Amino acid sequence: MSPGTLVTPPEPCSDAHPAWLPLEAWRAVGARHTVVYGQGLLVDTVFAEIERACAGHGGAVARGIGEPAGHPAQLMFALVKSLPPGDDLGRMAYAELAAPGESLGSEGFVVARPGEVTVVLADAPAGLLYGLFEVVRLGEAAFGPAYPVRVHRPALGRRMLDHWDNVDVHPVMGQVERGYAGGSIFWRDGRPRRDRARLRAYARLLAACGVNAVSVNNVNVHATEARLLTERLDEVAEIADELRAYAIRVHLSVTFAAPVILAGLPTADPLDDRVRAWWAETTRRVYDRIPDFGGYLVKADSEGQPGPFSYGRDHADGANLLAEALAPHGGVVHWRAFVYNHRQDWRDRSTDRARAAFDHFAPLDGRFLDTVIVQVKHGPIDFQAREPVSPVIAAMPGTRLAVEFQVTQEYTGQQRHVCYLAPWWSEVLQFRPWGDDGRSVAEVAADLVAVSNVGDDRFWTGHPLAQANLYAFGRLAWDPGLSPETVLDEWIDLTFDPASSAGPALLRSTLHEIMDDSWRSYERYTAPLGVGFMVRPGHHYGPDVDGYEYTPWGTYHFADRDGVGVDRTRATGTGFTGQYPSPWAEVYESLDNCPDELLLFFHHVPYGHVLHSGSTVIQHIYDTHFAGVREVEAMARRWQRLAGLVGDDVYARVDELLGEQLRCAREWRDQVNAYFHRKSGVPDAHGRPLH
Amino acid sequence: MSPGTLVTPPEPCSDAHPAWLPLEAWRAVGARHTVVYGQGLLVDTVFAEIERACAGHGGAVARGIGEPAGHPAQLMFALVKSLPPGDDLGRMAYAELAAPGESLGSEGFVVARPGEVTVVLADAPAGLLYGLFEVVRLGEAAFGPAYPVRVHRPALGRRMLDHWDNVDVHPVMGQVERGYAGGSIFWRDGRPRRDRARLRAYARLLAACGVNAVSVNNVNVHATEARLLTERLDEVAEIADELRAYAIRVHLSVTFAAPVILAGLPTADPLDDRVRAWWAETTRRVYDRIPDFGGYLVKADSEGQPGPFSYGRDHADGANLLAEALAPHGGVVHWRAFVYNHRQDWRDRSTDRARAAFDHFAPLDGRFLDTVIVQVKHGPIDFQAREPVSPVIAAMPGTRLAVEFQVTQEYTGQQRHVCYLAPWWSEVLQFRPWGDDGRSVAEVAADLVAVSNVGDDRFWTGHPLAQANLYAFGRLAWDPGLSPETVLDEWIDLTFDPASSAGPALLRSTLHEIMDDSWRSYERYTAPLGVGFMVRPGHHYGPDVDGYEYTPWGTYHFADRDGVGVDRTRATGTGFTGQYPSPWAEVYESLDNCPDELLLFFHHVPYGHVLHSGSTVIQHIYDTHFAGVREVEAMARRWQRLAGLVGDDVYARVDELLGEQLRCAREWRDQVNAYFHRKSGVPDAHGRPLH
Repeated sequence: MSPGTLVTPPEPCSDAHPAWLPLEAWRAVGARHTVVYGQGLLVDTVFAEIERACAGHGGAVARGIGEPAGHPAQLMFALVKSLPPGDDLGRMAYAELAAPGESLGSEGFVVARPGEVTVVLADAPAGLLYGLFEVVRLGEAAFGPAYPVRVHRPALGRRMLDHWDNVDVHPVMGQVERGYAGGSIFWRDGRPRRDRARLRAYARLLAACGVNAVSVNNVNVHATEARLLTERLDEVAEIADELRAYAIRVHLSVTFAAPVILAGLPTADPLDDRVRAWWAETTRRVYDRIPDFGGYLVKADSEGQPGPFSYGRDHADGANLLAEALAPHGGVVHWRAFVYNHRQDWRDRSTDRARAAFDHFAPLDGRFLDTVIVQVKHGPIDFQAREPVSPVIAAMPGTRLAVEFQVTQEYTGQQRHVCYLAPWWSEVLQFRPWGDDGRSVAEVAADLVAVSNVGDDRFWTGHPLAQANLYAFGRLAWDPGLSPETVLDEWIDLTFDPASSAGPALLRSTLHEIMDDSWRSYERYTAPLGVGFMVRPGHHYGPDVDGYEYTPWGTYHFADRDGVGVDRTRATGTGFTGQYPSPWAEVYESLDNCPDELLLFFHHVPYGHVLHSGSTVIQHIYDTHFAGVREVEAMARRWQRLAGLVGDDVYARVDELLGEQLRCAREWRDQVNAYFHRKSGVPDAHGRPLH
Repeated sequence: MSPGTLVTPPEPCSDAHPAWLPLEAWRAVGARHTVVYGQGLLVDTVFAEIERACAGHGGAVARGIGEPAGHPAQLMFALVKSLPPGDDLGRMAYAELAAPGESLGSEGFVVARPGEVTVVLADAPAGLLYGLFEVVRLGEAAFGPAYPVRVHRPALGRRMLDHWDNVDVHPVMGQVERGYAGGSIFWRDGRPRRDRARLRAYARLLAACGVNAVSVNNVNVHATEARLLTERLDEVAEIADELRAYAIRVHLSVTFAAPVILAGLPTADPLDDRVRAWWAETTRRVYDRIPDFGGYLVKADSEGQPGPFSYGRDHADGANLLAEALAPHGGVVHWRAFVYNHRQDWRDRSTDRARAAFDHFAPLDGRFLDTVIVQVKHGPIDFQAREPVSPVIAAMPGTRLAVEFQVTQEYTGQQRHVCYLAPWWSEVLQFRPWGDDGRSVAEVAADLVAVSNVGDDRFWTGHPLAQANLYAFGRLAWDPGLSPETVLDEWIDLTFDPASSAGPALLRSTLHEIMDDSWRSYERYTAPLGVGFMVRPGHHYGPDVDGYEYTPWGTYHFADRDGVGVDRTRATGTGFTGQYPSPWAEVYESLDNCPDELLLFFHHVPYGHVLHSGSTVIQHIYDTHFAGVREVEAMARRWQRLAGLVGDDVYARVDELLGEQLRCAREWRDQVNAYFHRKSGVPDAHGRPLH
């Protein structure tokens, strides 16, 4: 018997899709006359971008002379329909402007239209670049009636993508671990790709949604990839050289065992002087080569990766070792909190993987150096379609935290399924761990990080509609208050240019119908009520209800003939609810108050348990699974309307993938329903087939 | 999350273990004086083997002059303690012999000891070779008191091993598909290994247990491997050159699409004249290069392999195409009956994979040419630890059949578990499809074939005790009437030389205690009562009760909260029982008469159903799983006794693997018991933990 195979990944392709930066999106900028004030690489980028736009649309761009209005700290560009003589444009515009009265910081900017001139001001070059992309996003709306100063500053200082790209093709995980968009844009078969055009295009796309940091290699650092830190550092520097022009700093995943593997030291003990000296010297060399290098990303003592535990040290010792080496150069270490026992005994119900990150890290609060950023997955398990917010986020007030999302759709349809994740991320970012009066997750986090969904696929992300997730990640990291619908509108307008299409309203409304609720549809036809997993082990695609039930991975549902769910209460379960502050500790502990969508994450209940919705658990399982499939059927029907309204290539790819999504959703429906019917014996109240 | 990994396969190794041909095993032969009569390659082999043995033990060997006793049709060698002058030995011995009075055929031989001389006679050189190995097996027992002529002839004409070796490392299946003994002895990383010493050693081992044919490449023929038939034929010829000296003919797996893939023909339609001409010409070239080439092995229209169905033809058309090409040269085609729908809908309980081979092939009986051998897996599904005998074996009286076993332990512990399979094969070979008065499977079959368990591992088979399965396959194919215990004794005596060890009785008795019942132990701790599978999809190692339950592979158990098993009766099920002749059709159809060990293969029953054993099904599941693990614990304890009685390397390897077997058996026990406990709700009658 041969094993089943998944859909073949797309072929690598160099004529990359323009995504949310087609030339048409620059029409409004390109039709204007612009003067750009300021100097340096990023200002040059702004100038070049506007110049390219003008070439397509009849405008022109000039360099401003001196500082506008003699204000040396600020950079600026100004756009106007008709160009006045000389550089009067800038002086004129600035004279009309009320200064914002506060620093804009290293990335902030102002957009204003005091009269006939649209002006963008920034304190630092990156702000000017982000301002340009804001004007592109606004399009003609940036050139209407006069309006006052609007200040834009990013909510989160570092908006970072982690690539899980391998240099060598890994025998199990491939070129990109959990990659669903072809190969890596950085490496192929052990060698750097050096596709500079592709890298530059990628940098533009990221800057245009606000991303300012990229970690270029997999957090599981294998032997070849470990050498990126030393003898293969040039490959990282080459990537940095391309991304720098768009204000993106490069970070590197490193192995904690590097001193042993790369330098032959007898130990990687973080308190050993030789180890500290090696990291200091190695890091100095990295900065010699890449002066704006961002820092290290480390997965330590997790799923087999080496870490400080081997030397009797803790994660603070480990993280501080690297932070010390990086601090003199302005770098940081992202230290992942994804630490748990992946060899646990499924028979032992007292061990709870959900507890692990808190149990490991909360006691270390206050011991991390300032340049350590503890990187916490948004949920306590592993990027499921539904989880509570990780209690670690509220547990480390003395530590800088990054919250980690997964844009690559490992558990949310693997870029074969439409699953617009912004509503999910928005919920997480706006969750208030201390209740309504406390701060939100977005307010607690220093950085927002996501595992990238990009590969060498022509559409960047395999599924063309998965581009929206990448875009939305950047936008929500910049402004977590944006609504997912607004972000989707931005993405639609930029990508598909509905203003110029035959059916703009139809295009926009149809994409909203397909995408707005697609994450909840995915949730409906997969694992019910927050219980998670039920995916095929290994590749994690498609259903296998018991696939992880008897494994060492700590991801169980405990279904038996009477009920299902994980008892994580303090009263009778693993006590995980006690890791939350009030009021959530009490809400989750209470069978009466626990939200339906997380019920089975926190409680083991009989199939007849009645939800707040009024349905029993078992009938809810049946109903949501039938509903989820019907929703995918509707998606596929709706997509048909867009034939001719989107590019033929986009249409065909999405159409094909919707077929696969529908097939897979039906498998989920039938397997989950059959599983629980066989176990519970309860028939469907509506008499539908359960197999 | 990273996927789990299995135990690392052993490193390739050239200092191969002598297995059942250590020099010590030749002591009795080597201590004698021998005269060898006859000429040709195989007689030279016999001479060389005896010469090598003498070098170690003080005997001598000479060529006989002329024919002994003027009997030109017969070959002979004779052994005596003290050498008489000249070639009188042979004449003397032959003079004393009563001729067997019947032809010995191409492989038969006689052993006799008319007085002080032990004599082996054969009609053909291969017989002389097999006679030599019989004398080696007998050891000093061949040189005791005089005894009369004993005639040996193989029960099955072709005793064949199918290697599932790939030339290229397959991205999923590796160098050897379902190989558990390292890499291939033929190929490595796309190139021939050309390890002639290893090939010659392999040929000796096979000849010594009676194997006379080897198919060298995987039945799943990928692009590179397809070319072994044409441009890479030299690689096959090189293997044939090594195996020929031990009377082993080489066969080749070919793809039915070869005319399209290799010659660019527009079709592979078996009735197309261009296709027939291509096969005829291609086959002629094969025989030009390898005059004693055995023939082709074909997996067609099975698990994605191409076949005649693509052209609206049936398997008889397909097989006869190749048979026509081979017949002029004395070759045969082995055409596998392993044809079924591997994309079936698990929701559809009327489709039954067990029926497929019969449904496809029985109607074609009588349409196959004489040089077609339809190769039937011994059971209707796929080499499980327990299946009924395939009904195809009784359904094709007008067709030459090969019965196929699987020596490689895909579903029987993957050479990490001790699982001596001879008792299982013996049951199959002695099964009488038409009842006690009819012929046995061994009497119906023309050939016996097995998937090889050999790789480039130092012990040949990964687990040193798995050598016994390879040995037993050859011996049972030669003489299906041999008891598994006798075969095991032969293997122990040859391999471990207990006569010279410190504890011969202990060694022999301990190995019997460990191995005799090991297949039944394996059955006890894995899938219960003949229901099969419950293995991890893909690699098929370790338990996953629902692993195949909702897949397209046709391997289901249909467990729900009330009962378990597959209803294959005519009355209420798939009708599979009707494929058997009387009496088995009635026996299997009857819930009362169906043997316990096959109950769930044929019937879906409630957990409370009472077996012939008196136990309920659910209690039987619990009891056998606890018992199976206890038996493995006993194996491990017993093995400890053998420290110092077997080679240290053998001891250590087996000891390590017993640890893995015990771990895995406990997983099987706990997962199967927990699964059925959660589903049935029935507690263990003895109160043991069920999780």
